[in-house]
Amino acid sequence: MRAVDLIRKKREGQALVETEIEWLVRAVADGSLPDYQAAAWLMAVLWRGLEPDETAWLTLAMARSGECLDLADLEGPRVDKHSTGGVGDKTSLVVAPLVAACGGIVPMISGRGLGHTGGTLDKLEAIPGFRVRLTPDEVKATLRRAGCVIAGQTERMVPADRRLYALRDVTATIESVPLITASIMSKKVAEGIDALVLDVKAGRGAFMKTAADAGRLAASLVATGRAAGIRTEALVTRMDAPIGRTVGHAVEVLEAVDALRGRGPEDLSALCRRLAERMIVLAGLEADDAAAARRVDAALESGRAFERFLTMVEAQGGDPRLLERAGGLEVAQGVAAAEAPGDGVLATLDAELVGRAALALGAGRDLADDPVDPAVGVRVLVRPGEPVRAGQPVLELLHRDGRGLDAARALAGKAITVEETQAAPPALVLDHVTA
Amino acid sequence: MRAVDLIRKKREGQALVETEIEWLVRAVADGSLPDYQAAAWLMAVLWRGLEPDETAWLTLAMARSGECLDLADLEGPRVDKHSTGGVGDKTSLVVAPLVAACGGIVPMISGRGLGHTGGTLDKLEAIPGFRVRLTPDEVKATLRRAGCVIAGQTERMVPADRRLYALRDVTATIESVPLITASIMSKKVAEGIDALVLDVKAGRGAFMKTAADAGRLAASLVATGRAAGIRTEALVTRMDAPIGRTVGHAVEVLEAVDALRGRGPEDLSALCRRLAERMIVLAGLEADDAAAARRVDAALESGRAFERFLTMVEAQGGDPRLLERAGGLEVAQGVAAAEAPGDGVLATLDAELVGRAALALGAGRDLADDPVDPAVGVRVLVRPGEPVRAGQPVLELLHRDGRGLDAARALAGKAITVEETQAAPPALVLDHVTA
Repeated sequence: MRAVDLIRKKREGQALVETEIEWLVRAVADGSLPDYQAAAWLMAVLWRGLEPDETAWLTLAMARSGECLDLADLEGPRVDKHSTGGVGDKTSLVVAPLVAACGGIVPMISGRGLGHTGGTLDKLEAIPGFRVRLTPDEVKATLRRAGCVIAGQTERMVPADRRLYALRDVTATIESVPLITASIMSKKVAEGIDALVLDVKAGRGAFMKTAADAGRLAASLVATGRAAGIRTEALVTRMDAPIGRTVGHAVEVLEAVDALRGRGPEDLSALCRRLAERMIVLAGLEADDAAAARRVDAALESGRAFERFLTMVEAQGGDPRLLERAGGLEVAQGVAAAEAPGDGVLATLDAELVGRAALALGAGRDLADDPVDPAVGVRVLVRPGEPVRAGQPVLELLHRDGRGLDAARALAGKAITVEETQAAPPALVLDHVTA
Repeated sequence: MRAVDLIRKKREGQALVETEIEWLVRAVADGSLPDYQAAAWLMAVLWRGLEPDETAWLTLAMARSGECLDLADLEGPRVDKHSTGGVGDKTSLVVAPLVAACGGIVPMISGRGLGHTGGTLDKLEAIPGFRVRLTPDEVKATLRRAGCVIAGQTERMVPADRRLYALRDVTATIESVPLITASIMSKKVAEGIDALVLDVKAGRGAFMKTAADAGRLAASLVATGRAAGIRTEALVTRMDAPIGRTVGHAVEVLEAVDALRGRGPEDLSALCRRLAERMIVLAGLEADDAAAARRVDAALESGRAFERFLTMVEAQGGDPRLLERAGGLEVAQGVAAAEAPGDGVLATLDAELVGRAALALGAGRDLADDPVDPAVGVRVLVRPGEPVRAGQPVLELLHRDGRGLDAARALAGKAITVEETQAAPPALVLDHVTA
């Protein structure tokens, strides 16, 4: 097989066969395919797309390009949730221990933030000592103790995805539904899970700006998951304003703790509950949403969900006592307000701009290896739909000695708009894709 | 400027501006643009195309990426001919000295064969001692002595084209009219010429299979040449059967010598005369075709055209006496015939298949650095439109000790078809593109 022929075939809009895709992915993983041929193939895919079969073959080949988790000897259904990235999205921190408390095994391999969207691993690292780089044995040991784990992919997992993703980033070939699908789903397949609920974000703060685009990605993800033998569903959810009332790292961990204790903000709790319900049903732990909701209630009210979180934190090297006392995690002391420009109802709190404000304060990174400041961030005092008066603080910018504050103020100012009357708030869940 | 942004811009179908193209080409030439970004950009260009302005900017930037010939101190108009590649196409060997004998300065930077098409440099190397790798000073010295030179590009000419061409070859991005245009025209611009006639081949043996495709390439080449300040025209010519009666190296040189002495095959002579006429008119040496034709006649009949060829051969290290005596160039002694399958008229002599037969015998190369055998090749005994009887030899395969003969026989057999009656022979020149 010659790479140039496979590039030409795709360039001409033809579908590759399974052996061709497997050959390509193997050559990507073992380094025998030069970057320039991989780059040309990626651009041809961005142009011509991939058939559902090709996407599934690509996903499976990428998953098998490295080490996969073998969780066969753990008791309970293995189930995960994956979000396509949002602002203030700390649902993973809530959902993983919540579903574990409901009987699921949740081997969540997660990522870091890039650009204006936050990353689950960065948030957890706000807990002193918390380790996200685990060996496969440590992943299993944590699952045995806590029923859940949230860690980064190991060095040897999905090497083909790591190489292709790095190339896509520098060759303007990120924005391809089949390539996004294969990148996300190859990591999920490598987790060895039985069931998966995807949270595909749509809106101002999301990668997919419209519900239609998000729906297309959701359909591709679900079809690919099912082709890989994973019971898969997707919720398309709104990402116009940040989720909950915090954006950052320490502040989001603390908000997740609140949610696990049953006193989180309404939108965050609602989203976590909905995701957990579908995970529980897909995992086969309950037959329907109503029964799943009762199981979720019990796990939250009994404190078992929060206990699972504390157990996971301890198993991964963090000190759980820091999460139970005020001031246990460092939060930046500098506070500057961004205010409402007039009287009325808060119309928008643009998630992307708020995310970029947090980035400016030091919460995010421009390059994949940049460090982040766990203590800075943004607090949301007023949410869209709530009444405001001119000059009323809407956001609090939590800064470290003024670092990035001017830029953050400018971004936060643009994020806030006020209107005279209130439109009906749009639904949180826009679509539920089951096939 | 960031390469990823220029890739994205082209990917989205937008035109780049002049400074962006210049930046890209500089980065290609100095090696600062990684191959994978160049490859992604090339695929995006193949997908989205280039505007005429972009193609012209790319061409000029590529020409200026390296050393250009400075022929300002040579007397006479500098004029060249370029063909897009055919089978049995020895017109360069005839036209360069012919136009030099008519008063033009012909600095022909030529290439090698690849695949089933022959290369002018390979043909000339059938002359023992003939050197195609010349320094710029040697190029000028040869032009001063002979009025013409046929050489390869120097190491320092159009480095951006060399790098991009090598990448296109392995990333399936050859077949793009603007990229083909920039590759061809950048080398012509670097020659420092005033006028250029292009011979764009169409048909079975050509890169462009249809006259329409060849016409599009011709229009792009002509527009780009004019934008670069070169008086440029193109003839679209038929390439269904080999040109003349030989395919190979030594045999083609000997046939070119025949044509320069006024006894070449009719189709070859007609094409050379037509190309030379337009070169002479575009160079400003004569006002119209009729006057140019008289000048051509005089150059051929007086022997001055042939003398120019001998002078060029001598200046480039070859022994001109070898061209004036029978057996001066080695021609393979093994001869095997390919015969007509029936009585009638020779309908086709498929140029690509004949070219591939010559390749099988050792006349061509699969890889850019492979050596070629100058002595082997194919003789055409019967041309399309001529009557044949079953079993009559149509081609002679000139082989070295049977090397590649079985494959060549099979290809030659497929190249020959016979029909009962003769269709009107199509015109040699299909189109004349002047703007």
